[in-house]
Amino acid sequence: MKRLEHCQVYQSARRGFAPATILFDDRVQSVSPSEKGGGRYVVPGFIDIHMHIESSMTTPTEFSRVTLPHGTTTIVADCHEVTNVFGIEGLGQFMGLEVLNDTFYAVPSSVPATSSLLETCGGTIDGPEVRRLAKDRRIICLGEVMNAHDLLADGDNRTKRIIQVFRESRPECPIEGHCPRLSGSDLDRFIASGVDSDHCQQTPSSIRERVEKGMFLEIQYKSLTRENIDALKEFPGFFSFVTDDVMPDTLMGEGQLDRVLRKAIRLGMRPEDVIYAATWAPAVRMHLVDRGMIAPGKLADFVVLDDLDSLSIAQVYKRGKLVYDRDAELVPHVTLPSFGSGILQSVRRDLVRADDFVLRIPNGSHQVVHVDHEAPGTLTRKTIRTVTVTDGTYHAPDVSILASVERYGHQAPVVPVPMLHGLSKPGAICSSWSHDSHNLLVMASDAKFAALAVNLVIKRQGGIATVDPKGEQFVPLAYGGIVSLEPMDRLGKEILQVRAWLRDHGYQADDEVMSFAVLALPVSPVVKVSDKGIVDVATGTLIDWRDAE
Amino acid sequence: MKRLEHCQVYQSARRGFAPATILFDDRVQSVSPSEKGGGRYVVPGFIDIHMHIESSMTTPTEFSRVTLPHGTTTIVADCHEVTNVFGIEGLGQFMGLEVLNDTFYAVPSSVPATSSLLETCGGTIDGPEVRRLAKDRRIICLGEVMNAHDLLADGDNRTKRIIQVFRESRPECPIEGHCPRLSGSDLDRFIASGVDSDHCQQTPSSIRERVEKGMFLEIQYKSLTRENIDALKEFPGFFSFVTDDVMPDTLMGEGQLDRVLRKAIRLGMRPEDVIYAATWAPAVRMHLVDRGMIAPGKLADFVVLDDLDSLSIAQVYKRGKLVYDRDAELVPHVTLPSFGSGILQSVRRDLVRADDFVLRIPNGSHQVVHVDHEAPGTLTRKTIRTVTVTDGTYHAPDVSILASVERYGHQAPVVPVPMLHGLSKPGAICSSWSHDSHNLLVMASDAKFAALAVNLVIKRQGGIATVDPKGEQFVPLAYGGIVSLEPMDRLGKEILQVRAWLRDHGYQADDEVMSFAVLALPVSPVVKVSDKGIVDVATGTLIDWRDAE
Repeated sequence: MKRLEHCQVYQSARRGFAPATILFDDRVQSVSPSEKGGGRYVVPGFIDIHMHIESSMTTPTEFSRVTLPHGTTTIVADCHEVTNVFGIEGLGQFMGLEVLNDTFYAVPSSVPATSSLLETCGGTIDGPEVRRLAKDRRIICLGEVMNAHDLLADGDNRTKRIIQVFRESRPECPIEGHCPRLSGSDLDRFIASGVDSDHCQQTPSSIRERVEKGMFLEIQYKSLTRENIDALKEFPGFFSFVTDDVMPDTLMGEGQLDRVLRKAIRLGMRPEDVIYAATWAPAVRMHLVDRGMIAPGKLADFVVLDDLDSLSIAQVYKRGKLVYDRDAELVPHVTLPSFGSGILQSVRRDLVRADDFVLRIPNGSHQVVHVDHEAPGTLTRKTIRTVTVTDGTYHAPDVSILASVERYGHQAPVVPVPMLHGLSKPGAICSSWSHDSHNLLVMASDAKFAALAVNLVIKRQGGIATVDPKGEQFVPLAYGGIVSLEPMDRLGKEILQVRAWLRDHGYQADDEVMSFAVLALPVSPVVKVSDKGIVDVATGTLIDWRDAE
Repeated sequence: MKRLEHCQVYQSARRGFAPATILFDDRVQSVSPSEKGGGRYVVPGFIDIHMHIESSMTTPTEFSRVTLPHGTTTIVADCHEVTNVFGIEGLGQFMGLEVLNDTFYAVPSSVPATSSLLETCGGTIDGPEVRRLAKDRRIICLGEVMNAHDLLADGDNRTKRIIQVFRESRPECPIEGHCPRLSGSDLDRFIASGVDSDHCQQTPSSIRERVEKGMFLEIQYKSLTRENIDALKEFPGFFSFVTDDVMPDTLMGEGQLDRVLRKAIRLGMRPEDVIYAATWAPAVRMHLVDRGMIAPGKLADFVVLDDLDSLSIAQVYKRGKLVYDRDAELVPHVTLPSFGSGILQSVRRDLVRADDFVLRIPNGSHQVVHVDHEAPGTLTRKTIRTVTVTDGTYHAPDVSILASVERYGHQAPVVPVPMLHGLSKPGAICSSWSHDSHNLLVMASDAKFAALAVNLVIKRQGGIATVDPKGEQFVPLAYGGIVSLEPMDRLGKEILQVRAWLRDHGYQADDEVMSFAVLALPVSPVVKVSDKGIVDVATGTLIDWRDAE
């Protein structure tokens, strides 16, 4: 039997601390009051119930290794990226990788994010796949339902079928949602379909409306403002903190869920309330009855802090085992297995030519539609210009070429579209990590650089290529073109370089790499690009850029 | 689409009311703020997550009919009484009866309550039965684990096996507990085994200790004191109100869960907090994700109140249907099916003789052990007297005869034991409704009356018989000897008469009928009687009343 003696131990039911001694093996045996506690605070292991491992471009294995020192002992992963690439067989392989934390999973609900009419990907999840996945006890929720368009439509569709089959198979499990900007009667209908959480960027009024309508809120970094914190204080127990997406360089630099918690504290939430929303509240939401609290019978997952306000992590215990000790320089260790060609040879695309990326348009006057990426968020807008074409192609000094090149073996024709607020210097970036279909997203100053960057990603079988007159750089993402097999610290440095390249070439966004990648996500407002062209997200239709209505 | 317009609608996340209009069919479609609300309050249907239908001596069908007007729209029933009588086949039959509310079930964990070494009953639940029952989706928890003795013992036993199999089969489901008076390291070990609720009678310190140790508390009527209410106020969300056992006459006179809620309000808890602990808190505890709140997508289960402090119920809606309207005199209707001899001929016992109940003991001086029933609760104590026997039998003016006559076809010898604070006038009462084994419990002034009462129950195949020099009365409990097939209002009046008989004959207890019945419950402190004799509850052993150590 192990013990942590005379600490300040977190009491979930009181949202406070009391001096105590904890006896434990893999589970807590007892928590006995002490006369006085020492300077260290012991809190339950952090639980991140809405996140995507592939956003950190890594395997569950490496993810667990690098996030345990940040206090994250349990995650609920929605691996819809790997499922978009490989289908549910590939999800099963990903779930089979060794982890050091406890990793639970969601049934990915959005594979593809929209439909095969709007985009091409490598897998499909519909009723039969949901029924099959729901039998797996590691799966404990339906992953974020994003397609509000489907849910609010009349008649049958895939999103409704998925919810129905999941509800029948697992009536007790939560259904996670993604509904940015939705409100009023549309939000009512979205929630009435059974989707009762949201993890998108919030405002005080969206927080109040959602919680009053019965939603559980999952608050990520970008939702943390002083005003939102004040709104959240009205509803203890009805929200948790989550990470959603954490880029490799951010993870190595600032941390994972702990980074979110620290920001919440800085913005004025009591550390005791922040810890509640990272431990007990998410455990209750996900019915993880054996954790989230330091009490008899619960897992001995502990984070030992030497300061509460800075959330400075000295030690982490997972299932009673000390896995991280800052001062003793103890860190977790694990090794990856080797992978076969099914995993490593996933970019099934013949090489492209510069000609594929030329914006062709008949001579004459046109109303040209542009994907216009406004800094600082991931939002885009549809910007229309009247232009006169004389050489059969559209080009202008401030116009970049944007395309998502299909890479699942169909050799579909490339559909380049014009973009504003893209690159301001010569060059191109291409990434096979491009949410959620993970085709080969390219943004280029001209067609020649576009083809160079795309062909580099095809030849290297997945990754992020940047090319410009000075040369080329490449970050390999060998696993399905979306996940690195490198250690996270090296990957983090490489992604930092990609970020610098984007900034140097005039691309402006808060999170340059992620904002670029989600230019391909046709459920994120307002206009995005798929392998089939520009998608109008609100209507779920393709737009011809050549002639606006 | 139906609507409830301009009401004061309960907002769970705020534990308060706001004027609103509700649109609904079987589920809520929307809750829209109004300029002003009328005088009526609309709250979610009440959810009673710890209760035994058989305590009200009735079927699930009749129970649902009579409790909907009290606002109870969902129950989680632990039917260990009917399972003790008929085994899991009989539980399945009981669960198959038509109901008007939503009735979920627990896996009965204590069949028998102790072991076949200490008592005889009609069914057994062990690992294989748990595995089979856990496949049924109407079953959502493991019913109250009562056998602290087993849990705290070393090595393998049935209670531990049941928990292990349930945990394997349904890892996400709660495990309910019953641990009166347990505290300190024994309570730690009890909780560490996975049992994390308690519904027994509490004190402020037992409330604080249990919640701090991670238990969810289920607060029943007898736990409601002003001091306990003050302690509970420290822990919103960590307790719910429950009924456990409600006698037929109490149900018809004062109500069901609403009776508990009214008492909590009278003792100083805000009605808004009381409602929370009867709706959202129990829904969360039991993972009933589709109810407990008035919000889009949740079941349209409403209780309409015209006064908050008195919790005066004007209407009840179940799944959108108005099932009770006080002013329109609308009440629910349902009819029972007919039952076969397997259900109706369940008392398999040959007739007994007065001689079976004589307290035989060798002549000489003895230390005689008595089951001593102290008013006002259900607690007993072991009282020892030094007596001198001259005629081979033990008798004294203040000593009653107590016996639990085996009735499952084994024709086991009767083991009468002496009792203090039993009857003070000539007569006997015998009941086949005697928790949890439901043998024929008899308490008598002498052996002749004992045999008369027991034989009446045998001849009539189950019920409660009272006999005295003035004559006899009988309440039939035709279904397994524990459940009446009469309408509840008639049954309530009959039970009131039994209560009056017990009081008239000098038996003193707060709840005479229940206190008498649990004289046979060998997990309830301190000494109880089974068909095998006196059971010492703390040690789980049989005591020979004839010679105390």
